[in-house]
Amino acid sequence: MDPFTPVPADRFTFGLWTVGNVGRDPFGEPVRAALAPTYIVQKLAECGAWGVNLHDDDLVPYGSSAAKRDALVADFKAALEDHGLVVPMATTNLFTHPVFKDGAFTSNDPRVRGFALQKTMNAIDLGVELGASTYVFWGGREGAEAEACRDPRDAVKRMRAAIDFLAAYVQDQGYDLRFALEAKPNEPRGDNYFPTTGHMLHFISTLEHEAMVGVNPEVAHENMAGLSFVHGVAQAMEAGKLFHIDLNAQKIGRYDQDLRFGSEDVKQAFFLVRLLEGTAGGPRYEGPRHFDAHAYRTEDEDGVWEFARGCMRTYKLLAARARAFDADPDVRALLAGVADDDLEHRIAHYSKDNATALRERDFAPDTLARRGLGYERLDQLALEYLLGARGA
Amino acid sequence: MDPFTPVPADRFTFGLWTVGNVGRDPFGEPVRAALAPTYIVQKLAECGAWGVNLHDDDLVPYGSSAAKRDALVADFKAALEDHGLVVPMATTNLFTHPVFKDGAFTSNDPRVRGFALQKTMNAIDLGVELGASTYVFWGGREGAEAEACRDPRDAVKRMRAAIDFLAAYVQDQGYDLRFALEAKPNEPRGDNYFPTTGHMLHFISTLEHEAMVGVNPEVAHENMAGLSFVHGVAQAMEAGKLFHIDLNAQKIGRYDQDLRFGSEDVKQAFFLVRLLEGTAGGPRYEGPRHFDAHAYRTEDEDGVWEFARGCMRTYKLLAARARAFDADPDVRALLAGVADDDLEHRIAHYSKDNATALRERDFAPDTLARRGLGYERLDQLALEYLLGARGA
Amino acid sequence: MDPFTPVPADRFTFGLWTVGNVGRDPFGEPVRAALAPTYIVQKLAECGAWGVNLHDDDLVPYGSSAAKRDALVADFKAALEDHGLVVPMATTNLFTHPVFKDGAFTSNDPRVRGFALQKTMNAIDLGVELGASTYVFWGGREGAEAEACRDPRDAVKRMRAAIDFLAAYVQDQGYDLRFALEAKPNEPRGDNYFPTTGHMLHFISTLEHEAMVGVNPEVAHENMAGLSFVHGVAQAMEAGKLFHIDLNAQKIGRYDQDLRFGSEDVKQAFFLVRLLEGTAGGPRYEGPRHFDAHAYRTEDEDGVWEFARGCMRTYKLLAARARAFDADPDVRALLAGVADDDLEHRIAHYSKDNATALRERDFAPDTLARRGLGYERLDQLALEYLLGARGA
Amino acid sequence: MDPFTPVPADRFTFGLWTVGNVGRDPFGEPVRAALAPTYIVQKLAECGAWGVNLHDDDLVPYGSSAAKRDALVADFKAALEDHGLVVPMATTNLFTHPVFKDGAFTSNDPRVRGFALQKTMNAIDLGVELGASTYVFWGGREGAEAEACRDPRDAVKRMRAAIDFLAAYVQDQGYDLRFALEAKPNEPRGDNYFPTTGHMLHFISTLEHEAMVGVNPEVAHENMAGLSFVHGVAQAMEAGKLFHIDLNAQKIGRYDQDLRFGSEDVKQAFFLVRLLEGTAGGPRYEGPRHFDAHAYRTEDEDGVWEFARGCMRTYKLLAARARAFDADPDVRALLAGVADDDLEHRIAHYSKDNATALRERDFAPDTLARRGLGYERLDQLALEYLLGARGA
Repeated sequence: MDPFTPVPADRFTFGLWTVGNVGRDPFGEPVRAALAPTYIVQKLAECGAWGVNLHDDDLVPYGSSAAKRDALVADFKAALEDHGLVVPMATTNLFTHPVFKDGAFTSNDPRVRGFALQKTMNAIDLGVELGASTYVFWGGREGAEAEACRDPRDAVKRMRAAIDFLAAYVQDQGYDLRFALEAKPNEPRGDNYFPTTGHMLHFISTLEHEAMVGVNPEVAHENMAGLSFVHGVAQAMEAGKLFHIDLNAQKIGRYDQDLRFGSEDVKQAFFLVRLLEGTAGGPRYEGPRHFDAHAYRTEDEDGVWEFARGCMRTYKLLAARARAFDADPDVRALLAGVADDDLEHRIAHYSKDNATALRERDFAPDTLARRGLGYERLDQLALEYLLGARGA
Repeated sequence: MDPFTPVPADRFTFGLWTVGNVGRDPFGEPVRAALAPTYIVQKLAECGAWGVNLHDDDLVPYGSSAAKRDALVADFKAALEDHGLVVPMATTNLFTHPVFKDGAFTSNDPRVRGFALQKTMNAIDLGVELGASTYVFWGGREGAEAEACRDPRDAVKRMRAAIDFLAAYVQDQGYDLRFALEAKPNEPRGDNYFPTTGHMLHFISTLEHEAMVGVNPEVAHENMAGLSFVHGVAQAMEAGKLFHIDLNAQKIGRYDQDLRFGSEDVKQAFFLVRLLEGTAGGPRYEGPRHFDAHAYRTEDEDGVWEFARGCMRTYKLLAARARAFDADPDVRALLAGVADDDLEHRIAHYSKDNATALRERDFAPDTLARRGLGYERLDQLALEYLLGARGA
Repeated sequence: MDPFTPVPADRFTFGLWTVGNVGRDPFGEPVRAALAPTYIVQKLAECGAWGVNLHDDDLVPYGSSAAKRDALVADFKAALEDHGLVVPMATTNLFTHPVFKDGAFTSNDPRVRGFALQKTMNAIDLGVELGASTYVFWGGREGAEAEACRDPRDAVKRMRAAIDFLAAYVQDQGYDLRFALEAKPNEPRGDNYFPTTGHMLHFISTLEHEAMVGVNPEVAHENMAGLSFVHGVAQAMEAGKLFHIDLNAQKIGRYDQDLRFGSEDVKQAFFLVRLLEGTAGGPRYEGPRHFDAHAYRTEDEDGVWEFARGCMRTYKLLAARARAFDADPDVRALLAGVADDDLEHRIAHYSKDNATALRERDFAPDTLARRGLGYERLDQLALEYLLGARGA
Repeated sequence: MDPFTPVPADRFTFGLWTVGNVGRDPFGEPVRAALAPTYIVQKLAECGAWGVNLHDDDLVPYGSSAAKRDALVADFKAALEDHGLVVPMATTNLFTHPVFKDGAFTSNDPRVRGFALQKTMNAIDLGVELGASTYVFWGGREGAEAEACRDPRDAVKRMRAAIDFLAAYVQDQGYDLRFALEAKPNEPRGDNYFPTTGHMLHFISTLEHEAMVGVNPEVAHENMAGLSFVHGVAQAMEAGKLFHIDLNAQKIGRYDQDLRFGSEDVKQAFFLVRLLEGTAGGPRYEGPRHFDAHAYRTEDEDGVWEFARGCMRTYKLLAARARAFDADPDVRALLAGVADDDLEHRIAHYSKDNATALRERDFAPDTLARRGLGYERLDQLALEYLLGARGA
């Protein structure tokens, strides 16, 4: 078999809203018919995916009766069973209904905040019923255009109260569920609160139930602000807080594109997969590889599945490229550091002795500065592995 | 007197490197002669500034003998005394010397890291000798172009080791000094580690001596990435971590401009001053109002002092505009919230009872959604106050 | 009367799609009910607007019968008559229907191109019937995500064929109508063809009926790419090609925001109004001041009219600020040039004599370089006029 | 031989300022020693380059005596001869000297404009003496921070006068030389005039000697504004105006990076090489493949030559990938259009008959809209060819 064909062991997941996207945009009407969730389950299984994720409203349209909800859930669980798919992650739609037009958990109106909590408790129950172990929060409407409308410190406090409330709810219910918070700098709001994974990581450090809360970084969201997605993910991993990940592609400085994984900035995608797979050392990310993307509006349904297969296939290609790169002795030689164990020890922790030793040492910085680091060669090697010109 | 003329009580500060900037850029040679630090002190005092900040090398050129250092410091202290200026903040230059070409505290080479610690301990001593109570860290070279050159998680760990080391040094010396860490997304490196104030706030939460470390957000640095500076500063204030601030102006998505405060995105500058001054409520920022900016290359020395006066004058103008805006009854009416104390109580903390109450309530979201929030009027009022068309 | 209250003589116009915007976005459903075109006419007149613009489908929903079309047009003309409004500009919707998902005039499918011509001829007839003298082309879907899908040179050729065709149609019909082409860098497509006003101006220079074609620059569209809107408009004016203008506001590097005029980058808006009004000299723009913007999603209908009034009021405020700035003797002194008529003559046109004279002159560049230009003061004066701290 | 090793027939060129870059940046001092121009010639020849380009000051330092100039030129010509390199392009440095701090050809000071003409005439003579057939103009300082400092329409007029003057000079001298104008949106100025290749193409259409003037687009400069470089180059090619090209790499929305070709957005680089090489059809670009880039500051001299080889090698790799992609029958099938010769004829040119035929045809847009275009598959194929996963 083609080594790049996806299989469930790869732990690839898609959202119902991704392959089910009908192709409406701010300037145009839908180009594709809606697909039934059960049909999506069947097709994703055929494509080699491992799981499917969802917003509450993706499966149970807002306003459905309890009976309809139960029927939809039962059908969906049957489809999961039939096709061997799991639901590793669920989330709440707190952005589509006009009631959330000025935020959900950070709204100035306590009734909106109350309704958002109600909707999320119900959606958590649904997610748990479907087997989800990660619950994502994307505060799509938590932001402002008219900056005067609220003190941004109040937005932070309200968001904290909401996450603390819901974490306590989960614990009280005895659910085995972790939260993953997702940042975005803007769109649909002018300026969202918690615009980057860094802001979200800090926010998490102030929570009551911090241990059960991590981040869900999304390629497109950090790229919108021109930040290194790899660095953001690495900071989260170093802190043990990478609980989930949203893979897609995006050009810097424009509307949220949610393109096929790897289809923009494929070199960054290479370094991302390298980091997640741990091919250069360091712990591997063990969670789902979730694609939060959708097919171009130019596509019919066939194009949707081409899109889905492309996401997964590119991921596997990049993983193979990364493994080959990191196995190359030339690469290893370029990355071999300057060994000076005594100095590393002096630097590692403060003590009077260490400080004195550092102060007295002549580091000869002018001499040190002359050493070439070989990074042009290193980066060219990375590019050539990426392009399959070496090691393929 | 003109109410917008700066006085020391305003706590305005400039760096030696700001008004002393000679106007060299990547494509051009200096346009202005260097100014002696003692002369800068005299001129800043004449302009109404309260203090002056510095990098070690701004006052004591790199490589100076101990005798020369002491003479320079003595002259500088005399000038401060003569003109009544203080040095509230000091910092280390860890970016100009070629030895730092691949980072200082995050370099792969332990000798570079050791030298950076040595240089910083000396610079801290200098800052304390001059009376500084805040010590800023801007890791200008802590980043990468060739992403493969180091695991970004190692960069985080090395930076943590360095800050922990230096914090312990400060405590061991008995210095009364706090650290303020400054983020920047890129330039001079392709991608800096800790690219935003959010990332830096999170990093601080992982430090050994967290309590003595806060942030020093810079308008230009957050704007480069198109983030709301106001929201970033607010998140820091809410966490009690706004230890210092760098005021200037910058267009989104371009090279580091360090323009005169208020000269770009003056509406955001208005909301920033409003937040810092606390005119809408909430705690006021009590630290220095530091301008990290420089005059255009088109200017001679006269233009430099015009620039400096402009920064301060605009700040005071915006503060007056903000006070008038927040005093307007129409503004207050637009911001008056929906009062529902019982509901606020239910939302504030989780309990079974609160959860049940929220679940059982009919929030009538379709009805709630129809309420217009008046934010176009609110924002237009802000603009008209800003433009002096109301309340001036 | 308040001097900033809009009146028809100001020549302010809005599109039916602007104040009629229902507030749907990629993540949310409509927040406001649709307004009847005739009602919009009445309300705009009440607000002080001079005219109303439209896409074909704004007035006559796509697929309407001929009878329905005629009835709608008759009612609309009656409303215009009743309320004293004009229709200075019309345009075609070539982006909403899924048939245009891969472009209209640049589609690979000749049937789509043919249909786009058919739809546009009909829409031109409608515009002319309503009295429009300017016809705008915004090629919202003329672009690509999958770059391989067509040779971009073919896109240029197809667009040229379409505009040439339609210009000839207009001439053949004897219509008194000029075309105004509108550029946009991206959104809804990944990369639009003719991304800036500069690209569009060049394209126009290659057209068969070049004289009847100019540009319709939009603030938001140039700002998305971080370009100076003022410079783009100036280049068009210098070439006699500013046929129409779309006023709104936008942050750099994000989704198309279409915010209230002046509500972002008000300093640039000041320089724009100054250029259009000719307060610093140079020809004044005499066409409509069209606002292509819409109210926040937080607003009900009242907020929509606040938004409309705010656009117009801010324009008039900025015009007054610009007039005061340009009348200030300090400003005039700063802008007074170095007079050297002989040299200006030598530079103006090539001749052997002029070349020789220039070659032989000692320009003493080191001396020239020392002259300070006073631009910090000039820009601070502009800012203080803008803020109403001078001259208000 | 490795098919990707550069040879002179590839027509690769570098500037003296590129491989000679000493690694100074706004925050740091040089990291590499300057290299003699004659040594650069030797090394470029060893690397497989075809030519070397230069600013006047790169070879003859500003202020050199005539005798020194002649000696430098003679040595340089001897080196070119010895190593078989050519000088296809030359240009003027109108940005380093402080006299150009507010522009050269657009300065408010006629003496600065006069000096810029003088310097450029001399530099043109030098370029012609060295055999250059293309003369590049990059107006690095033609812009503004303080927008009020000049009417941007005057900047256009002054630039036009300068280019017209110099074109007449070239013609009068009987030089066989074409001009190539290079756009850039910002840096070192806040907002440059003629910010994109589109603006420059339009400007050229207004020149007296338009036929001898084309563009020199630079990857980094269009990318800074987030524009599609491929589309900009294609528009220039379609108009017969691609006279030269500057190849490098750049992230969107940041300082001018001038990175190794292909090292950022390698997919766009693939489509660019495909366009230049004409592998998909259409005319091939026959001019020099010029690399306007420099090595990272982390590099010593060895790293500089690694950088140079990497630029060329990646170009050749991408050309091979493009040829393979365009030869794939699956790709051809996806790009096969809908053939309708009659309709193409109707659309091609306006006539009453054609208009009538188009008006009467039922295009059945709802049906047309349902056709999937297969672009996800097409783009994935492009990516897989790029990654060497197909056809390598």
